[in-house]
Amino acid sequence: MLFNLCIFLIFPIAVQGIKESDLAPNILNFEYAVRGPIVSRALELKSQLKEGADLPFEEIIFCNIGNPQALGQKPITYYRQVLSGILNPGIVPSLPEDVQDRVQETLDATSGSIGAYTHSQGLLKIREDVAEFILERDGYSADPNNIFLTDGASSGVKALMSAFLHKPNHGVLIPIPQYPLYTATLSMLGAKAVPYYLNEAGNWSLDMESMRAAYAKAVAEGIDVIAVVIINPGNPTGNCLGEEDLIELVQFSEENNVMLLADEVYQKNVYNPDMTFISAKQVVRDLNSSLPLVSFHSTSKGLIGECGLRGGYFELTNFPMKIRDHLYRLASVSLCPNTIGQIATGLMVRGPSPEGESYPLFQTERKQIYDALKRKAAIVSSKLNEIDGVDCQNVDGALYAFPQITLPDGFIAAAKAAKMQPDTFFCMNLLEKTGIVTVSGSGFSQVKGTYHLRLTILPPEDKIPNMLTRFEDFFKTFVNGFDSAESKDEL
Amino acid sequence: MLFNLCIFLIFPIAVQGIKESDLAPNILNFEYAVRGPIVSRALELKSQLKEGADLPFEEIIFCNIGNPQALGQKPITYYRQVLSGILNPGIVPSLPEDVQDRVQETLDATSGSIGAYTHSQGLLKIREDVAEFILERDGYSADPNNIFLTDGASSGVKALMSAFLHKPNHGVLIPIPQYPLYTATLSMLGAKAVPYYLNEAGNWSLDMESMRAAYAKAVAEGIDVIAVVIINPGNPTGNCLGEEDLIELVQFSEENNVMLLADEVYQKNVYNPDMTFISAKQVVRDLNSSLPLVSFHSTSKGLIGECGLRGGYFELTNFPMKIRDHLYRLASVSLCPNTIGQIATGLMVRGPSPEGESYPLFQTERKQIYDALKRKAAIVSSKLNEIDGVDCQNVDGALYAFPQITLPDGFIAAAKAAKMQPDTFFCMNLLEKTGIVTVSGSGFSQVKGTYHLRLTILPPEDKIPNMLTRFEDFFKTFVNGFDSAESKDEL
Repeated sequence: MLFNLCIFLIFPIAVQGIKESDLAPNILNFEYAVRGPIVSRALELKSQLKEGADLPFEEIIFCNIGNPQALGQKPITYYRQVLSGILNPGIVPSLPEDVQDRVQETLDATSGSIGAYTHSQGLLKIREDVAEFILERDGYSADPNNIFLTDGASSGVKALMSAFLHKPNHGVLIPIPQYPLYTATLSMLGAKAVPYYLNEAGNWSLDMESMRAAYAKAVAEGIDVIAVVIINPGNPTGNCLGEEDLIELVQFSEENNVMLLADEVYQKNVYNPDMTFISAKQVVRDLNSSLPLVSFHSTSKGLIGECGLRGGYFELTNFPMKIRDHLYRLASVSLCPNTIGQIATGLMVRGPSPEGESYPLFQTERKQIYDALKRKAAIVSSKLNEIDGVDCQNVDGALYAFPQITLPDGFIAAAKAAKMQPDTFFCMNLLEKTGIVTVSGSGFSQVKGTYHLRLTILPPEDKIPNMLTRFEDFFKTFVNGFDSAESKDEL
Repeated sequence: MLFNLCIFLIFPIAVQGIKESDLAPNILNFEYAVRGPIVSRALELKSQLKEGADLPFEEIIFCNIGNPQALGQKPITYYRQVLSGILNPGIVPSLPEDVQDRVQETLDATSGSIGAYTHSQGLLKIREDVAEFILERDGYSADPNNIFLTDGASSGVKALMSAFLHKPNHGVLIPIPQYPLYTATLSMLGAKAVPYYLNEAGNWSLDMESMRAAYAKAVAEGIDVIAVVIINPGNPTGNCLGEEDLIELVQFSEENNVMLLADEVYQKNVYNPDMTFISAKQVVRDLNSSLPLVSFHSTSKGLIGECGLRGGYFELTNFPMKIRDHLYRLASVSLCPNTIGQIATGLMVRGPSPEGESYPLFQTERKQIYDALKRKAAIVSSKLNEIDGVDCQNVDGALYAFPQITLPDGFIAAAKAAKMQPDTFFCMNLLEKTGIVTVSGSGFSQVKGTYHLRLTILPPEDKIPNMLTRFEDFFKTFVNGFDSAESKDEL
């Protein structure tokens, strides 16, 4: 080696190394606010607190992301018992009998061990359970061969979009406000986001006029609109789509030969007793439509809340077998989704049998989680609405409030001086003064000239009143303390 | 709804639906032989066997993929105990004390639960453990901020390649034979595979002349070569790169400003006592080189063999912070790698402490796995070499033999008549006659006019002699039974 080192030293090499400009231009510019600079600053403040720093608050409350277990939601015992038994046969005899049965049933469905790769679409037994769940939900059968288990919903969305969006003039209709996964993925693929606006005054309902106008404008501009995305229940908006809206949407999509991508990860998170979740699949089948539809689901939300395990699935409806085969081949390059996430997906769609010993606790735990979410959804929106300058729609579903905030001119001027979007300036200051981590509306897009922020309803119930009081104080004293004249001095 | 249905029926819509030609052209054509038609046929035969079909064999032996636990390798007890305890606190008191400590230590590193999303690069504590492992291995420190935990190595490779390959004339030097992840990913990205040939006669050693020639030819053709891939130990070749080779490779890469992608997932799978694994990182540091290097590792191989859990990491060396930040932002769109895979990665790089109660069993289990792999590597290659028409290099490392097979003209003619590559025709018939599932050399690429196949050394030791006897019989009677004159009749 010494000899080679010498050669190296004698002939030094001119190295250019690697530069930012070597990166694909498409990945340089997208924003992913849910994990952006506000979160980075929050992590800094968190470690300052740990080191005993004197800050105006005692803890950081992470309301930036729907991460239930990070905010104290307990995992459901039955799910975790099954998963632990699958990983460690040694402890199985100590588990309840129906858990033991489920462990055995699951292991029988693998090729001998959960440590082995599975079919690239996921274990057949679990896809059969998903199909059964869909049948029960919609009243229409589902084919396990049309179901792909995934590492969370995000990886499914990205796989689907990357399979179909391959030209710079390809576009996708995206609800505004939207979850930034969609614009980020489109940006990475070099395709166009075609925004359609939800109707805030109508509790963020679907506005088909807006969608038709957005579509017509995009077509006029030469954009080939490949798909339309809906998020139902809505993220960040918390709205639930009604049947009339879904029918009109399916008809519109079919008329225009635009595939429907239905992000339905919050399907179990509906709190408004006057509403029920209606799947896009059910409407497509009700209408006997041949519209190509992909529906996404996830173990991260609902009442299971297992974000870290990265489980989920998508179901293809009205896709020819040839395309499914290509998507399978695509999935096979990653070999398979993680097996624990697969099993979590199976547990999500099929809990313990009502006859089993685990059932009563399972029901109790689910009810506790659901009831708490429902109470929190109501409290967060009503309390926000009590604040002057804050206007929050009902949180009918999902895990978020997305209030509109009216900002004084002086505050907006101060934001400009700080070179920030006004709502980002709001969220950054909210963090610095109260420890509450939120995401600014500009991270989700919004009607120009309006300002919003998203916060989860997930913090523990006993912390919410105090948290919202701090929010209110911040608004009254800090935000409303600005006026145009003195904005520069205040900064 | 009835009303809407009526509207729908009155105005039927002309639907085009979705067609194969709507897919991105880049994904239509790549091959992924490790999970191709031979495996599909094997799954069919497997279910026929289950239903009692009369076939010329009693079981299917899946030698097509490095999937240790599907072929009977037992998971390591300590790893599984820790994982089960992390998922289910209820069983922790029944676990050995050092396992309990590791469970607590791991949970302390999360934001309260393993069911929560983590940092998008993975839990810091685990990245610190990976950095420590790298330091011990190479003698050079590693920065946890340069480490990204991933869902297996494949997802890391795809993320890295998609970040840098964005023009049709971008190319990557790929060893031939190669693991098809690389050509498949390049094909999906619309970039070029620039093949360099390993030297089969020299036990698949690196042939820098071939690499230089391949590079020069690619440059002459207008290809912008962005990176070079090495797989060390080799897949499918089983070779281990020596220090001299690695030094020359690093110098070549640096000279030509080509980033080095080092697939080092088999770093613990070296069986030849005269060889040790030398990391690309160590050579880069030894040479004080500023070559940008990415090294990939995985929980799927080594002695851990936890393919299903999808754990792994990559380490960036000599990458500017700005690029790392972009890669973090890219990772954040998928939120985080699965937490169980993260913890499995942490366990892979740091087992139980030698003082702990779990250590003796842990050491015994690892030794059993390693010794068995070493014996199997030797048996498979020597037994294959006893067969007339089969020539197999030593399996110095990794999990595969990649023998060259000499096929009679009549056999080649028969393959052509069946519209198959000769080696694919070989593997398909091998499956039909013996139940042994292998992958043909054409799935990995090979020198034109030569034929190979890949089979894992993983089947249980007691099954290998019989399996190789069946292989030999197949070769003697079926393959060598062909001659040019009667090939058409034989089919």
